[in-house]
Amino acid sequence: MPQGIKTLVVVGVGLIGGSFSLSLKRAGLVEHVIGVGRSLDNLQRALELGVVDQISQDVAAVVPGADMVLLATPVGQMAAILEAMAPVLSAHTIISDAGSTKADVVEVFRRCVPLHLSRCVPAHPIAGSELSGATAAQYGLYENRNVVLTPLEETDASAIACVIELWQSCGARTHRLTPSEHDQVFAAVSHLPHLLAFSYVNMIADKQNSDRCLDFASTGFRDFTRIAASSPEMWRDICLANRVALLAELADYRAELDRLISQIDQGEGAVLSERFALARQVRSLWHLRFQRKG
Amino acid sequence: MPQGIKTLVVVGVGLIGGSFSLSLKRAGLVEHVIGVGRSLDNLQRALELGVVDQISQDVAAVVPGADMVLLATPVGQMAAILEAMAPVLSAHTIISDAGSTKADVVEVFRRCVPLHLSRCVPAHPIAGSELSGATAAQYGLYENRNVVLTPLEETDASAIACVIELWQSCGARTHRLTPSEHDQVFAAVSHLPHLLAFSYVNMIADKQNSDRCLDFASTGFRDFTRIAASSPEMWRDICLANRVALLAELADYRAELDRLISQIDQGEGAVLSERFALARQVRSLWHLRFQRKG
Repeated sequence: MPQGIKTLVVVGVGLIGGSFSLSLKRAGLVEHVIGVGRSLDNLQRALELGVVDQISQDVAAVVPGADMVLLATPVGQMAAILEAMAPVLSAHTIISDAGSTKADVVEVFRRCVPLHLSRCVPAHPIAGSELSGATAAQYGLYENRNVVLTPLEETDASAIACVIELWQSCGARTHRLTPSEHDQVFAAVSHLPHLLAFSYVNMIADKQNSDRCLDFASTGFRDFTRIAASSPEMWRDICLANRVALLAELADYRAELDRLISQIDQGEGAVLSERFALARQVRSLWHLRFQRKG
Repeated sequence: MPQGIKTLVVVGVGLIGGSFSLSLKRAGLVEHVIGVGRSLDNLQRALELGVVDQISQDVAAVVPGADMVLLATPVGQMAAILEAMAPVLSAHTIISDAGSTKADVVEVFRRCVPLHLSRCVPAHPIAGSELSGATAAQYGLYENRNVVLTPLEETDASAIACVIELWQSCGARTHRLTPSEHDQVFAAVSHLPHLLAFSYVNMIADKQNSDRCLDFASTGFRDFTRIAASSPEMWRDICLANRVALLAELADYRAELDRLISQIDQGEGAVLSERFALARQVRSLWHLRFQRKG
């Protein structure tokens, strides 16, 4: 039987942080949630919608005594938030995050709260979407979703167990990876496709006949570009934070694209259909597995 | 009040051809549909499902007397089908197609049925999907979808009017473009994203840790790669048929990607968020318009 926690502080009450709060409240695993953020409008909406129970724009004012703080902001903001929290942290407070990159978050924890590492549990719930803000928060977002934990050597087993328990009570499956393993895998399966989609939409937007093109765009375009409507700030931060792994993936993709360009240029029909057939098979098998898991 | 036609021959009874047949039957605008194809299995399924009323593997045997023939095969097969039909075509038979490229189809019409050009109406219904085969056929596929006609100078007004009437009775909106205008626009909004998605899945499939990567792929990956499960044969043919326009789009995309790589490499955060914000805005506005149309 999960124990749950009394007080949770969620910094960044959007899709990720807000849905974590709602899911824990429904599961009866948290008594009081305090939402912290930059935008008072968004915080007030979160309060009205019952996503959080109390709001504040000053993390240092609300963090003392909290059982857990979840940093659910773009990764670029986390250092400043941790620095503000550091002087007033209670010894037992667990700090976790929901950042899309992990090596940089581990580094930020080490730099900003060096005396508190035993309670730091870096994590990444895989449940993004192009939606953002408190109104995007939903019960059930984490049902059957993966959450990757990348704990430090210094992290207490009890802090890890608590974070695992909370995520599992939201319906998520938890996994452990090293930070660099995490960053490489997500550069490949998440960050790269976002960048490819952003670049594609920008290329279309820059065309002289972009309006005519967009008039005839249909369902393929819709699905391929959905992630190009994602938060610019979040994705800028991911690019900067996961720069090395992303540049490696981009170089691989560019090489793949150059091979394709040469195959089309040379009219190599047999090679083209062989490669397309491989992609079809890999994607179809993946999709069957993904649907079974969901 | 639409008049409709008596006998329709659909060559290639898959998503596109099968859905055209089903929609016309429901609208009461065709009396008898004959399905033609290479796979007897698929034809028999089409007959069982009521997608067509009669089946044949020999187009020359069923085309005499038909009011209309719809070529709904990959574009690479159309020349051989037209050559088989040419000697037995009735003078009044309208020939249309559903090919994803148009300049090459126009060229094939001119070469294979030069004495029948007054009845040729090249067309492209924009309703593709990663699904194929007779079981993918569905009523309503063309509701609020676009169909682009690229008639020849020689095409009779009455043949164009008939094809427009049939597509509109399926719920589609019809448009006219020149073949080269069509091919450039669809290279940009349809063909290029398919190739980018195929290349991306192939790159992931070729990784040493591809299984680990695919384990953590989620909804962004799912939507971005849906079109990479499309028919390899159809997309090989599109690459070969629309080679020139596609190479131009691929070169533009490669240049856009090179700029992104340089921005990430140089850590140009402000430029990155500005470009991502542009993409988000263009995609979000497009999506609002697309939903209103659908």
